[in-house]
Amino acid sequence: MAEGSSDTSLALGVLGGMGPAATLDFLTKLQSFTPAKTDQDHIRVLVDINPKVPDRNLAGSGAGPVLAEMAGALAGAGADVLAIACNTAHAHADLIQRASGLPLIDMIETASSAARDRGARRVGVLGTKVALRLYREYLAAQAMGLVTLEPRRQDEFMATIYKIKAGDTGPGVRREMADYAADLVAGGADALIAGCTEAPLAMGPKDVRVAFIDPGELLARRCVAVCLGLEPAPAALGA
Amino acid sequence: MAEGSSDTSLALGVLGGMGPAATLDFLTKLQSFTPAKTDQDHIRVLVDINPKVPDRNLAGSGAGPVLAEMAGALAGAGADVLAIACNTAHAHADLIQRASGLPLIDMIETASSAARDRGARRVGVLGTKVALRLYREYLAAQAMGLVTLEPRRQDEFMATIYKIKAGDTGPGVRREMADYAADLVAGGADALIAGCTEAPLAMGPKDVRVAFIDPGELLARRCVAVCLGLEPAPAALGA
Repeated sequence: MAEGSSDTSLALGVLGGMGPAATLDFLTKLQSFTPAKTDQDHIRVLVDINPKVPDRNLAGSGAGPVLAEMAGALAGAGADVLAIACNTAHAHADLIQRASGLPLIDMIETASSAARDRGARRVGVLGTKVALRLYREYLAAQAMGLVTLEPRRQDEFMATIYKIKAGDTGPGVRREMADYAADLVAGGADALIAGCTEAPLAMGPKDVRVAFIDPGELLARRCVAVCLGLEPAPAALGA
Repeated sequence: MAEGSSDTSLALGVLGGMGPAATLDFLTKLQSFTPAKTDQDHIRVLVDINPKVPDRNLAGSGAGPVLAEMAGALAGAGADVLAIACNTAHAHADLIQRASGLPLIDMIETASSAARDRGARRVGVLGTKVALRLYREYLAAQAMGLVTLEPRRQDEFMATIYKIKAGDTGPGVRREMADYAADLVAGGADALIAGCTEAPLAMGPKDVRVAFIDPGELLARRCVAVCLGLEPAPAALGA
């Protein structure tokens, strides 16, 4: 429950900083989706913008324990439910939930369910290799296939993501992102998930000829609904 | 020190949510002032966006203990130094520092020093009554006078601030803010401090005929400098 108030809204804990700009984008979406006329109408959000989390794309980098410690600290500071503003870091979702004892509003599950709701059968995902593995699993569980970039293009996509992390969201980068999406559509995708939180900073529905799914936007909408009690919170692991 | 890293940058704890949009504005400024090419170049920022803090303008509202508890939790989560993204809440600065044991990068002091550095003698401040009391004290300590709105205009100013909190930063609100600033200049102010974090959301240097000081912007620049070790951290209370 939120500190210093008799209201019943839940406090959201956000594991962020991967990268920092994507976390601000997520926080901005959270606020814009909250029906609020006064400060007090907003939900309480505890955020750890930790850009020092070891690289989520390297096995054995130690990202998991750092994320678990961050999650435990957010629980201690008053969070009731967690969100992770990074697709790739969901590889450590179980550890994060067990370390904190809090339920997680899962971004990969949220985006995958949105693809299903739009009738998708083969979903193109732009994401890191770790995120693609997670999406393959979640999409398969709902009888959808995954369409990915060919290896050389995947490497180029990652180079573009690092440009966005360095602050470049100009026309050149936007064109590159639209081209990766076009590759996936040419490969048979009937929906596109911008499955890296940096991706929606440089692309949108207008850049894609199929349904465009921004996992961060959908996650933000779900977080607001859960924290305001309009949607049930997910069950905690082991609960 | 930042978690999961051998670097020596300090982690910043931010007491926020008063209001939520102003906190995002502060976080955006923090990021934009950080010289960063990769995620890891950014500083770690732990933020409590708590819009449920009792009204900072009401004596005995209980805001102090809530802010102190938030500060303690940020210390527990890994913050090395604190900032408060709200001018008015600085009324509880001592309590916040004693409860957390952490030094505070003080926004009121930062803005007052900036006015002195620009050669101001009489400083107009747009802020809540509590914030005006703080500015009067800090400005006097540096031999500067305070220019405030007459009581009726002060009430109108607060009504405009609540419009901004409700999301209105349109032309009407901008004109009102510029008019309050003009009142202060007519009253003899040779510099203007936008001393409420909502104020800079609806005004800027172009709206004022004297030096315009945005405390949140200056605070963000100082926080980045302190966390990157380019400027010494303030001493902790009692240290």
